[in-house]
Amino acid sequence: MSARGYLYTGSVLLAATLTTTTAHAQVERVVDYREVAGRIIQSALADSNAWNRLAYMADTFGPRLSGSDNLERAIDWILETMERDGLSNPRGEPAMVPHWVRGLESAELLLPRETKLAMLGLGGSVATPPEGITAEVLVVSSFEELDERAAEARGKIVLFDVPFTTYGATVRYRSGGAVAAARVGAVAALIRSVTPVSLNSPHTGAMNYDSTTTRIPAAALTVEDAAMIHRMHDRGQRVVLRLRMEAQTLPDAVSRNVVAELRGREHPEEVVVLGGHIDSWDVGQGAMDDGGGVIVSWEALRVLKRLGLQPRRTIRVVGWTNEENGLRGGTAYRDRHAQELDNHILAIESDGGVFAPRGFGFTGSNAARAIISAIGQFLEPLGAATVFPGGGGADIGPITREGVPGVGHQVDGTKYFWYHHSHADTMDKLDPREMAMNVAAMAILAYVVADLPERLPRQ
Amino acid sequence: MSARGYLYTGSVLLAATLTTTTAHAQVERVVDYREVAGRIIQSALADSNAWNRLAYMADTFGPRLSGSDNLERAIDWILETMERDGLSNPRGEPAMVPHWVRGLESAELLLPRETKLAMLGLGGSVATPPEGITAEVLVVSSFEELDERAAEARGKIVLFDVPFTTYGATVRYRSGGAVAAARVGAVAALIRSVTPVSLNSPHTGAMNYDSTTTRIPAAALTVEDAAMIHRMHDRGQRVVLRLRMEAQTLPDAVSRNVVAELRGREHPEEVVVLGGHIDSWDVGQGAMDDGGGVIVSWEALRVLKRLGLQPRRTIRVVGWTNEENGLRGGTAYRDRHAQELDNHILAIESDGGVFAPRGFGFTGSNAARAIISAIGQFLEPLGAATVFPGGGGADIGPITREGVPGVGHQVDGTKYFWYHHSHADTMDKLDPREMAMNVAAMAILAYVVADLPERLPRQ
Repeated sequence: MSARGYLYTGSVLLAATLTTTTAHAQVERVVDYREVAGRIIQSALADSNAWNRLAYMADTFGPRLSGSDNLERAIDWILETMERDGLSNPRGEPAMVPHWVRGLESAELLLPRETKLAMLGLGGSVATPPEGITAEVLVVSSFEELDERAAEARGKIVLFDVPFTTYGATVRYRSGGAVAAARVGAVAALIRSVTPVSLNSPHTGAMNYDSTTTRIPAAALTVEDAAMIHRMHDRGQRVVLRLRMEAQTLPDAVSRNVVAELRGREHPEEVVVLGGHIDSWDVGQGAMDDGGGVIVSWEALRVLKRLGLQPRRTIRVVGWTNEENGLRGGTAYRDRHAQELDNHILAIESDGGVFAPRGFGFTGSNAARAIISAIGQFLEPLGAATVFPGGGGADIGPITREGVPGVGHQVDGTKYFWYHHSHADTMDKLDPREMAMNVAAMAILAYVVADLPERLPRQ
Repeated sequence: MSARGYLYTGSVLLAATLTTTTAHAQVERVVDYREVAGRIIQSALADSNAWNRLAYMADTFGPRLSGSDNLERAIDWILETMERDGLSNPRGEPAMVPHWVRGLESAELLLPRETKLAMLGLGGSVATPPEGITAEVLVVSSFEELDERAAEARGKIVLFDVPFTTYGATVRYRSGGAVAAARVGAVAALIRSVTPVSLNSPHTGAMNYDSTTTRIPAAALTVEDAAMIHRMHDRGQRVVLRLRMEAQTLPDAVSRNVVAELRGREHPEEVVVLGGHIDSWDVGQGAMDDGGGVIVSWEALRVLKRLGLQPRRTIRVVGWTNEENGLRGGTAYRDRHAQELDNHILAIESDGGVFAPRGFGFTGSNAARAIISAIGQFLEPLGAATVFPGGGGADIGPITREGVPGVGHQVDGTKYFWYHHSHADTMDKLDPREMAMNVAAMAILAYVVADLPERLPRQ
C-alpha cells in the first residue's frame, strides 16, 4: 500500500451511541449464517488455490508498475481467467495512469572510500544529468536538523538518515525529503529506506514535488549504507557520492480496474465491493502489496460460487489500478459508478498483506458496526474476530468519503514493512494456509452483508 | 567463519573421568580471581571502544578478502594502532594467500520471463566465457535428486534449491555443488543461498573443485529467486538463464597474521593465544565475520593493560589471515611457532559473531576443563558462564591438533546466518554493549589462564 493508504487506515471513527431497533433485529439475523460461515471456512481452507494463483501471476508477469506491460498482461490474464471461472461480467474499466519509468540507476560512494551502494530511485523522481550528480553529502536525522543546518546544504546531497519508528512517521522523509532538501539548495535527496529490518535492502515508494521548489532527484539507500555514511559524517570525514538516475515520467498510459461479479438474486443493483490493488512497485513481485489482496478477493467469490451461494445482492470484486503512485483507479471507480454509490452497501479493501487475518477495521454507523461485529464472531476459528475502530483503505477512500461504509481487512502486520516496496515482496513470504484464511474471512463478510434481508444501515 | 570452522566447532570431546590433585588445587586458586574479574567486566563495559574501532575499520577499509588492498590496509592500520596502544611487539607475520577476484558478474532469467537476478559468485569459482553461459535450468532439491535426474543434466545449468536446515547440512551444496553438477555434464552450478532468512539476499562463500571433473562456474542465487525458478520448473515451464562471471584466481599474494602481545611477567615464553580472522569475504563489511573477533581480542588486551594487569604468562592477540578461502594464516602460525607449541597454554578463537556471549566451548583435558569451568563462573553476570563440550575453531585448528588446548568463544548465534557472507554483514547488526561483554569474557578467560600459578594441564 501507499503512504496515503496507511494513513487513512489509521483514522479513527468517533462512535455514536444509538442503534436502531431494525439494526438490533439485523444483528439477530446474523446468527442464522453461522452454519454457512462454517462451510465457507471449510471450503476456503480445503486448497491452496489463492496462493497458487498469486504465485502464477507473480512469477509469470513480475511486478506491475502503472504504465508497464507487466501490469496490463497480468490484467489480461485475470480477466481471461475470471471468464473461465464463470464469474459475471469480467471487464476492465479504463483509467489513465501515470507512467514513471526507473531506467538505469546507481549510487557510488567516492570519498572517503570507493564502493557501490545498493539503492532504489523513488517513484516520481526526476533523472540526474547523464554524467550523474557528484557532490558532498550532508547527513541529517530529521527535518528539524536540516532546518538548523540549512546553511550547509547548498550544492550538497542531503541524506535523511531517519530510523524507522512507525511507517506513518518515517515515510514523511520519503514523501517530502526532496522538497525539503531542494528548499535549502541541495542538489539531490537520499533517504534511509523506510523499514525496521534490512539485509542491505533498498525500499522504493512514492515521493512528491511541489510547484515552488526545484525538482531534484530522490532515491533510497539501505539502512546499512545510510548508517555507515552517517558514521563517516560524524567522524568529520568528507563524504562524496555520485548518483546516477535515468528516471522519467512518460505521458499517462491507459490501464484498467479489473472488475467481475457474483450477481445478486434479489437486488443485483445493490453491491458489496471487495478488492485490492493490482498495480505494484517495479521491484520484487508485488506479491503482498498487493497482488494478494486482489487474489484473495477474487478467490472469495470463487469459494461462494463453488458452494452455490448466490446472495441477495451483488458481490463485486475489484482490482484497482495505480494505487501506488496516483490512486487513479480508486478515483476512476468512484467517477464511473457515481450514480450507483447509494447502492454500494459496503466496500472492503485488503491492502496490508495477506498474512494471518486478525479482523476488520470498520468505518460507518454504529448500527452497521454492530452487524459487522456479529459477523466477525464467525471468524473466531481463524483468530480474526476483532472489529477495530476505524478502517478503510486508499482505493475505497474515494467512495467511503461519499458515504459508503468501509472495511479495511486487518492482518498480522509484524513483518509487512520488512518487505514493503522492495525486492523482497515475493511469494515465499506468504503462506498458503494464511492466504486461504483471508479468503474465508473476506468471503464470509461479503456474503453475509450481501445476503442479509436488509441493507447495512448508513447513519 | 568458513564451513570448515563451523564443522570443527561442532566436534565433541569424549571426556575422561580423572582429574589430578594439582588440578583441584588450581580450581581452588581460580576463586582468588573473582575480584579482578569483576574489575575487568566493569572496565570493559565502561565504553564502546570495541564497537567504535570495528566501525572505523569496517567503514574505512571495507570488506577484506585475501589478496585485496583492503585487507592489507586494514592490517597496516591495526599494527599502527597497536603500536600507539603500547602493546608489545606488534608485527605482521607473513603468509602467502590465495588471490581470487570476483570481477563483474550477473545472472539474468531469459525464459519464461526476462528479469535480472541478484547473485554472488562463489569464492574460487572460474569465470564463464565473456558472452556468458546461456542454458536451460534443471532444478533439484538434493544431491540424491540430481543422481536420479542425471540423464537430464547434460548441457544444463543445475540449480540446487535446498532450504536451510542447519549450516553444516546445507553448506554442502555450496562446497560441492559444482563438482556434483559437472560430473553429470552440467555447464554451471547455482545454489539457493545458505541462509534461513532472505530479503532477496545472495550469500557467497567458498566452493571446491576436484581433480577429476571439469571446473564449471558456480554462484548463489537468492532464496526468493531459487524458489521462483523451482516453481516455474515444477509447472513444466522451460527455464533459461544467462550467467556471466569474470571471476579468476590470480597468483598467491602476500598477507600477514597480525600479532601483538601483553608480555608475561614471570614466564613470557608461555603463551595464551586469542584472536579471530582479519580477512573476510568481499561483500558487506566483514563486521561479524570476523572483524569483531579480532577487535574484541585486541580490546581484551587493552582492558587488561588499562587496569595494570600484567599476567605471569604472555597473552598474544592474533588476527589470522585467510580463514575464509584457504586457512593459510592458521597454518602459517602453526609452522612459524612450531617450536613454541609446547608453551602454548591455551588458544581461544572468536569466529561466530560478536553477539551476546554465552560461554566457551572447550577441547582439552578434564583437569583443564574444571579450571575453565571455574573461570566461566565469573561470567555469570554476562550470561556467559556455560562451558560447552568440544570447541575450537578453524584458525586454531592447526595448533589444537598439535595438542594445544582450545576454546571456541560462544555467542548467541540466532541471526548469524542471516548476515553471513552477504552484503548485510555490517556494523549496524552489532551492539556496542554486547561487543563489550565479549571483550570482558575474552579478557577474563585469557588473563586468569595466563596468571594462574601453574600451567593449564594438558592430558
